[in-house]
Amino acid sequence: MDTKTLRPIAEKLFDDIRALSFDGVGVSRDSYGTKETATADFLRAFATDAGFKVSADRAGNLVIGFADTPADAPTIWCGSHIDSVPQGGNFDGLAGVVAGLLCLLEQQRSGVRSPIPLQVLGFRGEESAWFGKAYVGSGALLGQLEAEDLALRHRDSGETLGQCMERIGADMEAIAAQRLLFDPKKVRAFLELHIEQGPVMEARKLPVAVVSGIRGNIRHNHVQCFGASGHSGAIPRWLRRDAMFAVADLIMRVDEHWSELLERGTDLVVTTGMLSTNAAEHAASRIPGHVKFSFEVRSKSIDTLEAFYQLMRAECTAISRERQVRFEFDRRILSSPATMDPSLCTLLSKVCTELGTPFEVLPSGAGHDASMFANAGIPSGMVFVRNQNGSHNPEEAMDIGDFMAGVQVLHQGIQEIR
Amino acid sequence: MDTKTLRPIAEKLFDDIRALSFDGVGVSRDSYGTKETATADFLRAFATDAGFKVSADRAGNLVIGFADTPADAPTIWCGSHIDSVPQGGNFDGLAGVVAGLLCLLEQQRSGVRSPIPLQVLGFRGEESAWFGKAYVGSGALLGQLEAEDLALRHRDSGETLGQCMERIGADMEAIAAQRLLFDPKKVRAFLELHIEQGPVMEARKLPVAVVSGIRGNIRHNHVQCFGASGHSGAIPRWLRRDAMFAVADLIMRVDEHWSELLERGTDLVVTTGMLSTNAAEHAASRIPGHVKFSFEVRSKSIDTLEAFYQLMRAECTAISRERQVRFEFDRRILSSPATMDPSLCTLLSKVCTELGTPFEVLPSGAGHDASMFANAGIPSGMVFVRNQNGSHNPEEAMDIGDFMAGVQVLHQGIQEIR
Repeated sequence: MDTKTLRPIAEKLFDDIRALSFDGVGVSRDSYGTKETATADFLRAFATDAGFKVSADRAGNLVIGFADTPADAPTIWCGSHIDSVPQGGNFDGLAGVVAGLLCLLEQQRSGVRSPIPLQVLGFRGEESAWFGKAYVGSGALLGQLEAEDLALRHRDSGETLGQCMERIGADMEAIAAQRLLFDPKKVRAFLELHIEQGPVMEARKLPVAVVSGIRGNIRHNHVQCFGASGHSGAIPRWLRRDAMFAVADLIMRVDEHWSELLERGTDLVVTTGMLSTNAAEHAASRIPGHVKFSFEVRSKSIDTLEAFYQLMRAECTAISRERQVRFEFDRRILSSPATMDPSLCTLLSKVCTELGTPFEVLPSGAGHDASMFANAGIPSGMVFVRNQNGSHNPEEAMDIGDFMAGVQVLHQGIQEIR
Repeated sequence: MDTKTLRPIAEKLFDDIRALSFDGVGVSRDSYGTKETATADFLRAFATDAGFKVSADRAGNLVIGFADTPADAPTIWCGSHIDSVPQGGNFDGLAGVVAGLLCLLEQQRSGVRSPIPLQVLGFRGEESAWFGKAYVGSGALLGQLEAEDLALRHRDSGETLGQCMERIGADMEAIAAQRLLFDPKKVRAFLELHIEQGPVMEARKLPVAVVSGIRGNIRHNHVQCFGASGHSGAIPRWLRRDAMFAVADLIMRVDEHWSELLERGTDLVVTTGMLSTNAAEHAASRIPGHVKFSFEVRSKSIDTLEAFYQLMRAECTAISRERQVRFEFDRRILSSPATMDPSLCTLLSKVCTELGTPFEVLPSGAGHDASMFANAGIPSGMVFVRNQNGSHNPEEAMDIGDFMAGVQVLHQGIQEIR
């Protein structure tokens, strides 16, 4: 692989796309919004100039391949998502799309096409931050968006997901009918390169890793706790129905269960990413009568997810009784854990060894579009690239050398899939 | 007292002022803002029409009295505040101003003036909800506003307190110089009628109560907890620096200390009225790296306030170490507890007995302008009126019969002060 030629191309793509989606702090490429579309348009123009055929699938995702690939040929899909969280980092998602593009460029340059034609996918709407729902672009392709999903509202504009998808040209009739928008049998493999979003590879000094499986999650975007507001000075503790103390109590009970389960070796992370007293009425001198928060539990095991979720609900019931409050839950969203295809894992590991790239086989804590395809029965594999400072934050970092090492593994793997 | 004539006047005043300050949910009479000024203007017009002399003191508070009261005569001050919390109730504050007006009307109607002339005060800016500082109108009169107070910003408009006070005509030069804007020796007594803001009188079936003392408080309007944001799925518990879990931990530790101290009979309430993850960056799938919250502790005892405050700070230190976060505190605001004048308490109690009004002597959990005057050495007394559903909320309620009973006590007390 001609990394000397390809590396500066990758650097320029990352720099240009960062510039067009910079928000003053990090990048904000909002799902089905202006900056996600600008990024897709930029990639489209780049790939067209490079001589590739660029189209959009029926869910509005970007599709790039060789012009001479027959429409009904089995293909290898390789890609990731274009969007980012608000004030996010530049590489989460984008790295996988650029990696796929570099594989195409290498095949074009060398004249050595992969035995099974490569198509690069740039998914839209993977991040749940904008509409409260993850994997929208891949989910739409798989006919998995429900009417309730299409009615979700954008965190800032308040427009529905359906309206935003329609605007970028998605086939809303087919999506609303939950039709499968492609033939899964024609996809020989789904491969995704992604930065690691945790600190493990950095700690273990691994530039790349092969992913064994992906954590699933159960999530509520909006849990509400209702108590009774009142003057902070005039109501004694025993007459209070303080929604904030009730939610703090819940978080600490959940934290205790979490600690105990970790000691028993359970795979589990728990997060309350958003929490707020009601800004329309809150004051330092007012007992909060209303608190809104998100709740998320992730695990590799579907049983752990279910059990921990029920534990959380049981604590809500206990707290409701003890503190005279009431919890109200919005729709529960489940993303199932996924296992990567063992033979693809073996292949990618073999390639790492042959290339002399230090690697390990690791689970992914974060969710990825690859889990959607794996759970739909498409053999899926992932390559992780080391990343400093975590992800979903503007300090996210990735060494371009590590990235190119990951692209080489991906490229070689694609060449060897039969 | 001619309650038959006065009661419908009071009802109409309450109704008209509720209508002009209704916000769709409750009333919002913002300190030094449009609706507080509209309320002051309405009261000014009413009192002028009724034949009284209306002016503003140098801090912009409303002053109403008989036109023939000599400017340098010793007076009895009677009043409360005009402003409300956002989406608050109609009677918190306003009841005390209307009560003073009714006492003036009764003196005018009967021709029996009190031995010491009565002046009714309508204070501005008593509620801390708008600028994060309580008792601004009375504090300004007492020369107690610091430069830092005048630089506080309005929760919505962002204007400084100083700018807003200047707009309504306050003498900013004198206020900034922290000059005493009146002669305390000329104020024989300060009397305030106020709704009870807790559930005690309702529980004990008391239409009125005489207040023995007022709880003080220590408050931070903005405490910040800084951790590290990151992907919720990819960072294990031991590597997290979750600001939300850290603050929940703090609230629960504070709650435990509070419970223990209550068992020992300590007078104490603790509130975190406002709390929020950082809306610019938060998401269900992101570990919160930044949480902002208010903290308030109230007690009748200054020693309890100090001790509990230090306990809270010690817990912050412990949590910082255990959870790898950092707490940052804005300016600490202390409102000292106050004792009501014993001879005024005795007088008001005697009047209740003579009028046959069931009453008790109770402490006030909430703070009041009366505490400012009491701590400045002016003999101060308070009459509480029963109120259902607490205060600082739109459901706040007050029976007009209970209110008139309180006004009678106030009126009779004013007549007997020598």
